[in-house]
Amino acid sequence: MIKRVGSYTVEFMHPPIITGYSSVVGKKEAEGPLGKYFDKIFYDSRAGQPTWEKAEAKFQQEAFIGAMTKSKTHPEDIDFVFAGDLLNQLISSSYSMRSFNIPYLGQYGACSTMAQGIIMASFTVGGGSARETAVVTSSHFCTAERQYRYPLEYGGVRPQTAQWTVTGSGSVIVSNEGKGIEVVNATVGKIVDKGIKDINNMGAAMAPAAYDTILTYFNDTKTTPKDYDRIFTGDLGQVGSELLHQLLNDDGYNIDSIHRDCGLMIFDRDTQDVHAGGSGCGCGASVLCGKILKDMEKGKYNNVLFIATGALMSPTANQQGESIPGVAHLIHLKCQ
Amino acid sequence: MIKRVGSYTVEFMHPPIITGYSSVVGKKEAEGPLGKYFDKIFYDSRAGQPTWEKAEAKFQQEAFIGAMTKSKTHPEDIDFVFAGDLLNQLISSSYSMRSFNIPYLGQYGACSTMAQGIIMASFTVGGGSARETAVVTSSHFCTAERQYRYPLEYGGVRPQTAQWTVTGSGSVIVSNEGKGIEVVNATVGKIVDKGIKDINNMGAAMAPAAYDTILTYFNDTKTTPKDYDRIFTGDLGQVGSELLHQLLNDDGYNIDSIHRDCGLMIFDRDTQDVHAGGSGCGCGASVLCGKILKDMEKGKYNNVLFIATGALMSPTANQQGESIPGVAHLIHLKCQ
Repeated sequence: MIKRVGSYTVEFMHPPIITGYSSVVGKKEAEGPLGKYFDKIFYDSRAGQPTWEKAEAKFQQEAFIGAMTKSKTHPEDIDFVFAGDLLNQLISSSYSMRSFNIPYLGQYGACSTMAQGIIMASFTVGGGSARETAVVTSSHFCTAERQYRYPLEYGGVRPQTAQWTVTGSGSVIVSNEGKGIEVVNATVGKIVDKGIKDINNMGAAMAPAAYDTILTYFNDTKTTPKDYDRIFTGDLGQVGSELLHQLLNDDGYNIDSIHRDCGLMIFDRDTQDVHAGGSGCGCGASVLCGKILKDMEKGKYNNVLFIATGALMSPTANQQGESIPGVAHLIHLKCQ
Repeated sequence: MIKRVGSYTVEFMHPPIITGYSSVVGKKEAEGPLGKYFDKIFYDSRAGQPTWEKAEAKFQQEAFIGAMTKSKTHPEDIDFVFAGDLLNQLISSSYSMRSFNIPYLGQYGACSTMAQGIIMASFTVGGGSARETAVVTSSHFCTAERQYRYPLEYGGVRPQTAQWTVTGSGSVIVSNEGKGIEVVNATVGKIVDKGIKDINNMGAAMAPAAYDTILTYFNDTKTTPKDYDRIFTGDLGQVGSELLHQLLNDDGYNIDSIHRDCGLMIFDRDTQDVHAGGSGCGCGASVLCGKILKDMEKGKYNNVLFIATGALMSPTANQQGESIPGVAHLIHLKCQ
């Protein structure tokens, strides 16, 4: 059912199917260019919860319930849930999934976690370990700022290369049968670290990882950008996207016209003061579930690469003078 | 190649094989009852590195290299590495694996991560997505104390229910062919939270999760403790082990004579001042790779359950008044 293509890519002969998906975002994301596409909006950043961390768990729960509703599944149908977020010890995920009684596998790939989760779900469904699986990831501007940077009250100035963590969540149901969008290939990324140490320039740290994974995938599958309708990256933002184009151009691959970055799609950089664009586990997840999969179902495009990118450092590692390791995981999606 | 047994258990018809394994521990662990079994000992808690965090990454690298050496594999043979640790953003794993150029999938299940990683590796190998995979996890007393509790210099008093985080790492190579120990069944655990809020009593928080997973497994496979030579738990310690026995006894399962807990095996509680026993991702991992798999290869026992347990809270969640969600993942190991 699964075969390996080239050195690193996996092909699903009987492709796992995304039978349901849902997105939940906050107010700022709802005010952006994709506002009308998201399934649910919390205008209150606490989503009625006493803390932002509990709010982020609530976002995940709503996205997961929305995805199950769309695929007509129930928690007891789900064999495994792959969940992840940016918070220490993945608390958004463990607390959000606590009430559902589903075998739980915590995933951490920073902002690449949505693609990682879909790959893990596809491995289990495609390999016969599961019939129905779920993936859910989230991020929240307020929880991320206070964990990674400064207390919000401090009002630290953000440089122009900084990205704005998306408050949002996305969830998909990956099944071994049914109607939906197929996961046909996957490439798991290697850790790539080019020595970038500026935690306000994640795009530059992640672009070389995206480049490595995309190039690996083209080599493994003997395809070129011309074979795809769209290539979406998770959240390289402006700086990282320009770097990616440049790196791929040097190898003779021009993706400028078909590449879109979720971090650039979700906010209007001219009016929303987000600097280099959006970021976070919830960025790629909410844009995938809010816009990309919907557009594919509508027939707007049917042959898509989705590459989510992650920066794997922590404040502790950064304070100890470490550079930022990047990673990028790729899935190839097709309409049935 | 893989079929589902009962509601939650997966059976590998062509079992993935642990073809190599290795363990690395610190001084205190080397002075414990299992000291002579570990493959490598760092008597310096910094392992020659400038910080404890970098030392923990070094422990992982040494364990991984040891496992590859035993299975006669090289980094370029490994299709995926599943790695995890207790540190925020899994930095021990991302920094340790950065230099190996292997597709990387970060796993987080707190102290259950070794079992989770072996299950993910078995899903990919058993399902055809990979030929050779690696799993590596670690923990370090000094990095864990300062992240989860107090600066070491503070000298906080530890209550008798507290466990001592093991400084150590274990790594296995999981392959689709070769000589070694077979992974025949796996049960992924659900999140179980009985409302325990005392972060100095992890055993009590994790025991109900271990109970849930073991009971699920017995029900799914229609087996009883009599069918196994040994049942090992990851790190329930004294408090959690007693609770587990009690809970299973209430269901008519007596495991007292065949159950061993890695947290109780690794230290001598009478002389090593560890209170309720050892804990940490590196506890189950180093005991599995240092003692259990070696004993199986020697023929001491050949039909074993290994259940690693994790407590999924964070200091932030705890400060916000949350209870501690537990999880436990089970693998059934057999000699070839």
